[in-house]
Amino acid sequence: MATDGTRDGLAVDGDRLRRRFDAFNEIGATDRGGVNRPALSDANARARDRLVEWLREAGLDVRIDEMGNVFGRRAGSEDAAPVLLGSHVDSQYNGGRFDGVVGVLGALEVVETLDDEGIETRRPIEVVAWSNEEGVRFQPDMLGSGVYTGRFDLDYAHDRTDKSGRRFGDELDRIGYRGDGPCVADDLHCYLELHVEQGPYLAERDLSVGVVEGVYGFSWLNARFTGAADHAGPTPMDRRTDALVATAEVILATRRLTATGGDDLVGTVGSVDVSPNAINVIPETVEFTLDVRSYDNAAVDEAVDRIEREIEWAGEREGADWAVEEIMRVDASTFDDDCVATIEAAAETVGVDHVRMVSGAGHDANYLNEICPTGMIFVPSEGGVSHTEAEYTEWTDVVGGVDVLLHATLSKARE
Amino acid sequence: MATDGTRDGLAVDGDRLRRRFDAFNEIGATDRGGVNRPALSDANARARDRLVEWLREAGLDVRIDEMGNVFGRRAGSEDAAPVLLGSHVDSQYNGGRFDGVVGVLGALEVVETLDDEGIETRRPIEVVAWSNEEGVRFQPDMLGSGVYTGRFDLDYAHDRTDKSGRRFGDELDRIGYRGDGPCVADDLHCYLELHVEQGPYLAERDLSVGVVEGVYGFSWLNARFTGAADHAGPTPMDRRTDALVATAEVILATRRLTATGGDDLVGTVGSVDVSPNAINVIPETVEFTLDVRSYDNAAVDEAVDRIEREIEWAGEREGADWAVEEIMRVDASTFDDDCVATIEAAAETVGVDHVRMVSGAGHDANYLNEICPTGMIFVPSEGGVSHTEAEYTEWTDVVGGVDVLLHATLSKARE
Repeated sequence: MATDGTRDGLAVDGDRLRRRFDAFNEIGATDRGGVNRPALSDANARARDRLVEWLREAGLDVRIDEMGNVFGRRAGSEDAAPVLLGSHVDSQYNGGRFDGVVGVLGALEVVETLDDEGIETRRPIEVVAWSNEEGVRFQPDMLGSGVYTGRFDLDYAHDRTDKSGRRFGDELDRIGYRGDGPCVADDLHCYLELHVEQGPYLAERDLSVGVVEGVYGFSWLNARFTGAADHAGPTPMDRRTDALVATAEVILATRRLTATGGDDLVGTVGSVDVSPNAINVIPETVEFTLDVRSYDNAAVDEAVDRIEREIEWAGEREGADWAVEEIMRVDASTFDDDCVATIEAAAETVGVDHVRMVSGAGHDANYLNEICPTGMIFVPSEGGVSHTEAEYTEWTDVVGGVDVLLHATLSKARE
Repeated sequence: MATDGTRDGLAVDGDRLRRRFDAFNEIGATDRGGVNRPALSDANARARDRLVEWLREAGLDVRIDEMGNVFGRRAGSEDAAPVLLGSHVDSQYNGGRFDGVVGVLGALEVVETLDDEGIETRRPIEVVAWSNEEGVRFQPDMLGSGVYTGRFDLDYAHDRTDKSGRRFGDELDRIGYRGDGPCVADDLHCYLELHVEQGPYLAERDLSVGVVEGVYGFSWLNARFTGAADHAGPTPMDRRTDALVATAEVILATRRLTATGGDDLVGTVGSVDVSPNAINVIPETVEFTLDVRSYDNAAVDEAVDRIEREIEWAGEREGADWAVEEIMRVDASTFDDDCVATIEAAAETVGVDHVRMVSGAGHDANYLNEICPTGMIFVPSEGGVSHTEAEYTEWTDVVGGVDVLLHATLSKARE
């Protein structure tokens, strides 16, 4: 019923939103129905240009900060602390069309709906698209909101490099998105983010909206084994120091320990780079990554300790040198009670099926939650699938989520 | 004592050989003391140019066939079937200086020594450098000798592509080494190849020369698991189909089964390519290779069967699709008794410590052995190390091996 408007009649224009969504996702579109717009790529630049154009057409006061975060401000009747709405428009490599985009275009739709209805709010409303949320090209992820909220220095962020050695700051210059506005948090009344769940919780329960109470904490590790490259034929098995065998033991140990480390603990080895990576040469070095998450920070601590011991043991068994470094740690975060209650009330107003839940995925909202009252709205991911071109959300659910964002925003902007 | 000449006084010029060896290995030299001259690369082309120049300076009749195999012929007193000597000058990525090069420059040194000594032979002697022995850029390996001996069609060989899609035939044209001579075997009296052992057998026994009786057979497999890419955070462990977890099981199973599959059985997963290979995405596809070797063909058959079952079981456990293909199979080969005896006698004449042994590594000699009497001479690899920049052979052992090649060649060329 979300697409048919809401109980008090105020609803967004789902057709306009759909036209924008489809046009936006022509940028960097892939053959398999996804998008390939990693942070600061040419496709990401074209997506930013399209967004800025639409923000201006909507009459918003656009500014870009020195991290490339894009803001569009709708004035309030008073110059009070604004309500900030948004998400990100960078994508995974060959990622989905919904991840991030629904939150940014949804926020734009919210302010346009208020304009259409001639609704003035006491507080300004700002739409934001954060830089480098995905963290696949430049690590760590959530870099734009991380600098904005003071977690990272600007110089640190500008010095991040991708695998080919290109600096984040140089790439910002290259695509013309190193703005002149300072990347520091304004005094914010609250931050609201609409996003796809990226997990199966809502889809399996046939629910349309998740009212997010908090987000898993996580740890990211970079690890490396160094063995001895040697000819795969004449080198006896008992003379080998194979960095890939040691890595395989850690991959399986990570799978095993998540079974006993806590109900919601997850662990993933997502990236493996073997050298020399030739069919007839024993692997000399393997660099690999680990991603460990739980809503229980202690469970993440324990899992990281166990994985580090597994790495040490695997290296000693194989006779390989080993190194492991935690490159990222984010504690689990609990969102503001009042924001959560406001979103829940908005879902009631809109009349969508909803449930309170926690998020397994990190979001810019994690960082915003450290500096202002924050809440998140989830819409379902079909099959729980995300970070892939197969990512899909029913359009009625997208529109229902944006309606909830509209009503929650209206409540907070009137405060 | 090899460098002090041999018992009958006939010995190669170790200093001339050393000058050539050092000059040759300036081409594609790496910072860590190795060479990077993969097949048909620019560095491989410059190495070929240098070799052709030296063959011509030595008065040899040079011809290049349509596979880029380079031949240099020294006439005999009769137009009889020639004695063919050689190896290869392509390298692994960042490989060693000795692998292949000692056999080619050693063969050149043999004919120059005969010239210096005014020794005429009944049979012609030909020096050869085979194309793409290593098989790291274009697979299968030993492609030049494989076409020459009729194992592969010329068109098949020219259509091999590297990871960036470049065709072998096009790359031959690009570097100017698609010769006009047909790539078909001549009537050969025998083939003799000098090569570094690439294993620890000689070095551990402090022996200078290996008289090779035969070569391990081997199988190369390409395998792939296809799971589901998904977000590493909100995807519960029991909802995952992780192609890398399945791969890790096969890597460890391969290590395990070699312990029970036969004394000399070796198995290696050398290459792993993960997609999308991002820190926070569950691996969707993993393509990996297997290399299985033994002097016992039945042991290779059994190991390949077991590995294919392990791949199937791992895929079924993880719920991943799997595919496996044998891209290469070479049976173990036993060299010609008379060639082996001739090399052993030559080692006695030179007075180097020697032993009969088998080779774990495949060589062009495997294919030549299918069409003519063939023998191989090994010199030690320090620590058994090969296919890496650390590869090293004591110079006195190199010269001793070339002296053995000289005397074995002389015996066969006088027949």
